[in-house]
Amino acid sequence: MPLISTERLHTGRIVSLDLDTVRFPDGTTGTLEMLRHPGASAVIPFLDDPKWEDPRIVLIRQFRHAAEGELWEIPAGRLDPGEAPEACARRELREETGYTAGDCRRLVTILTTPGFTDERIHLFIATGLRSGDHAREADEFVEVHEMPWSEVLRLVEQREVTDAKTLVALLHAETFFRRAVGPRAG
Amino acid sequence: MPLISTERLHTGRIVSLDLDTVRFPDGTTGTLEMLRHPGASAVIPFLDDPKWEDPRIVLIRQFRHAAEGELWEIPAGRLDPGEAPEACARRELREETGYTAGDCRRLVTILTTPGFTDERIHLFIATGLRSGDHAREADEFVEVHEMPWSEVLRLVEQREVTDAKTLVALLHAETFFRRAVGPRAG
Repeated sequence: MPLISTERLHTGRIVSLDLDTVRFPDGTTGTLEMLRHPGASAVIPFLDDPKWEDPRIVLIRQFRHAAEGELWEIPAGRLDPGEAPEACARRELREETGYTAGDCRRLVTILTTPGFTDERIHLFIATGLRSGDHAREADEFVEVHEMPWSEVLRLVEQREVTDAKTLVALLHAETFFRRAVGPRAG
Repeated sequence: MPLISTERLHTGRIVSLDLDTVRFPDGTTGTLEMLRHPGASAVIPFLDDPKWEDPRIVLIRQFRHAAEGELWEIPAGRLDPGEAPEACARRELREETGYTAGDCRRLVTILTTPGFTDERIHLFIATGLRSGDHAREADEFVEVHEMPWSEVLRLVEQREVTDAKTLVALLHAETFFRRAVGPRAG
């Protein structure tokens, strides 16, 4: 679906809205609204060895205007210009929670909602955390929670976790990382 | 974070972009770009009894301009005005694949990317499918694939599935639905 032309409808602080004219696979042309996003990283911070039966992780509780309430999330944020995804994950972890990651390994990269935005979020697992001071931005209102994996899974099962990046990261880790590294959590 | 005022920056065909002025939890005010979306439904169509060891499902392969390539996805689409999420899931399944659902049960509702849009996607599992004719929209270019669950999980594990709603639905079903209903696949 090659791009024929693009018209910038709005240049925003974080996202910009374009109207793209594209050629469809059948040769016809059409227009698509496309929100351009710089991309982001998000990270599951493991406080204990992930191979343990029920390791603790860090979750954040954040008020989101879009949700008209607070959401359970993993630490995350946008890539700075030229920043590598892993560097972004480490920086956001430090800024939002105060923890510095030892090892940081890639889980999977997702398209959040490809019907209208090119936003990609790179998901990571961080281990070997060292605590320090956080440095949140002025418009971030974040509570930091430490929670055992079994309790996190219970929140997911009870539909109390609704943020897509957080669900993908936790469930991907549960299915392909936790199962691979050791006995299942209780 | 109560809304103080909102300014419509752009009214689009599918999404509209607002600049919201909100009061933050600390009493200060600020502005947030917010993409308004009508919401959507998505559905995992099970061709076999989900209690079987390795049931087949329907996946679609769709060219996405945002991804500059084809994505593996579950059938999905936007809510029509006033349409209930389950009715939308059944309609989109029929339009995209030709299958009519017998039973349709809710998995979880997600916020795709709450930093800049209020889009919610309601995820379902459909069983008791009956085949029929599809009725795709002119700009939908979709291949329908039937695949055993073990093969779907292999695609997820190998990072070949990158669409967030599809990953949440498949991994939520694997972790909390498949495990609950019968022996593990694979």
